[in-house]
Amino acid sequence: MKKNILRSKIIEIFKKHKLSENHSKICADYLIKAELIEAKSHGLTRLKMYCDRIKKKLINPKPNIKIKRISSSISHINADNSIGFVSADIGISQAIKNAKKTGIGLVGIKNSSHFGLSSFYAEQAVKKNLIVFCFTNAPPALAPHGAKKSLFGTNPICFGVPTGKVPFILDTSTSKINRGKIRHAHKFKKKIPFGVALDKYGKITTNAKNALHGTQLPIAEFKGSGLAWMVDILSGVLTGSSHGGKTKDPFDDFTGPQNVGHLFITIDPKIFIGQKFKMEMKKNIEIVKNLPKAKGFNSIMYPGERKNSLYKKNFNKDITIPKKILQEMDALNDI
Amino acid sequence: MKKNILRSKIIEIFKKHKLSENHSKICADYLIKAELIEAKSHGLTRLKMYCDRIKKKLINPKPNIKIKRISSSISHINADNSIGFVSADIGISQAIKNAKKTGIGLVGIKNSSHFGLSSFYAEQAVKKNLIVFCFTNAPPALAPHGAKKSLFGTNPICFGVPTGKVPFILDTSTSKINRGKIRHAHKFKKKIPFGVALDKYGKITTNAKNALHGTQLPIAEFKGSGLAWMVDILSGVLTGSSHGGKTKDPFDDFTGPQNVGHLFITIDPKIFIGQKFKMEMKKNIEIVKNLPKAKGFNSIMYPGERKNSLYKKNFNKDITIPKKILQEMDALNDI
Repeated sequence: MKKNILRSKIIEIFKKHKLSENHSKICADYLIKAELIEAKSHGLTRLKMYCDRIKKKLINPKPNIKIKRISSSISHINADNSIGFVSADIGISQAIKNAKKTGIGLVGIKNSSHFGLSSFYAEQAVKKNLIVFCFTNAPPALAPHGAKKSLFGTNPICFGVPTGKVPFILDTSTSKINRGKIRHAHKFKKKIPFGVALDKYGKITTNAKNALHGTQLPIAEFKGSGLAWMVDILSGVLTGSSHGGKTKDPFDDFTGPQNVGHLFITIDPKIFIGQKFKMEMKKNIEIVKNLPKAKGFNSIMYPGERKNSLYKKNFNKDITIPKKILQEMDALNDI
Repeated sequence: MKKNILRSKIIEIFKKHKLSENHSKICADYLIKAELIEAKSHGLTRLKMYCDRIKKKLINPKPNIKIKRISSSISHINADNSIGFVSADIGISQAIKNAKKTGIGLVGIKNSSHFGLSSFYAEQAVKKNLIVFCFTNAPPALAPHGAKKSLFGTNPICFGVPTGKVPFILDTSTSKINRGKIRHAHKFKKKIPFGVALDKYGKITTNAKNALHGTQLPIAEFKGSGLAWMVDILSGVLTGSSHGGKTKDPFDDFTGPQNVGHLFITIDPKIFIGQKFKMEMKKNIEIVKNLPKAKGFNSIMYPGERKNSLYKKNFNKDITIPKKILQEMDALNDI
């Protein structure tokens, strides 16, 4: 489907679900962005879920989002159960403003919901020449080290830095693979890689459904478990959002709003060494890229480069939409 | 050896190497702390290295450490090639002050050197009821994903948060094990675990010497490589320190000062939800600890608990010092 036609369709669907024109556009653009970078697990496959939650009044289509100023660096946002795209979009703008004013920005968001990929927001800060951290918690998917029950989300760590060229954006879940990929595999009846998840009996499984009912494995055992816990504290406990496994699964749990929390930290990279930062950052990347390559590698890429090249490659192409999702879209448009 | 006798001996050694009384005490206390928490790779085994670098004028025993105020939240410290313990000790105090004043502190330190364990500094901030990140870069040990040559250090991520009880302190290198452990194994002719390092030909090795000449493996492949890169940018590029593999190895490279960089971020956890933070944090930990245990686990511990219990266990015991290190200490005292 042509991108602009798809965009109009998504906007139409969100508007029919009572989102404002502006909020519908924000959501449509992020969903299309996910498709363009081939993060299909965070794209159109989630459209029905968002709409289902709006219909069940678990996402508020007309949120009264309040930004509380704590200081010129720090802001606290009550998202009023908005769709995550909208509250995170407002949150990152505020974090950018704060860092531009004072050198460092810190924005906590509570009462939010799934916001797509952290890199969407990191990219905006990086394009304004800021260093950025984006943290968000997520519904239970990982067992803490020593436990046999899922509790932490796949809680990504996202870090961005301006390079003068393509933004350096590391966006890595603390699980071996992100949960969206398992959901996507389940939806399209595909297998998941070996060694990334256990079934409910604690055995390694490549069956997506069994993995969803079991536990995903963290990266590096106690290290990954600790990092997931860190993200739960920063985005959940600190911001006043749900935490400790209370974040609701957007697909399966319709007993209440998700109450996801996000935390954004923005830093002006010029604070210590001024304009020299640009030059040093360029040098840093050049040194790494010029290292002798390991077997099977033609080039060394920094985090964010691959997604950027996918975005460029797909930008002028039509977006292929599986029949199942087209049917979902038709049904969503038909209310 | 009795702790107070050991302390006097270390202070004596540092004073003979021209450190001030105060700086000697700071260094002695951190080295003893490493022994008490059984992080022997960061304890007395390094004393000779620090002294060698002082003798060769690569660590400045009488540094003129300057703190530059960027704003009430942000400070930049020029460590003047001090021993890392001293500059990091000053740096964390400043980061604590800044966060107490404004809710968030950011301190960058340049021209520093190896500072022991990041958890030493995180703990101080946590004991003042702050959330904290400590980042430091380190000499080449890890190959970036796609490269076959070491460039990043084992670049730890350290995160601390007050719990009302034992501090939650995650201190995790982005390598599968920390380099100090490999050095320690080398010094005492022990094997290293399988699968954590490659020799210079790219083969997995359990020989510590071959590992030191080869490459350590990052946690979780490109994810760990990306996290190590992030730490290099934050503590190296941002602060105006060495980066991109230019940080000198303190044991092997005597061609100049190490020029390590550190970055501390401190956050007052009360900024968003006030005193409620304490209660929620307590709840968070209780929920995790009460999960059903995996096979082989009697309890679920949070990061920092194990080290804390080792510290308590060893606090009133004599410290066992290998003969080799006793000989080194005698020689260092005999100048």
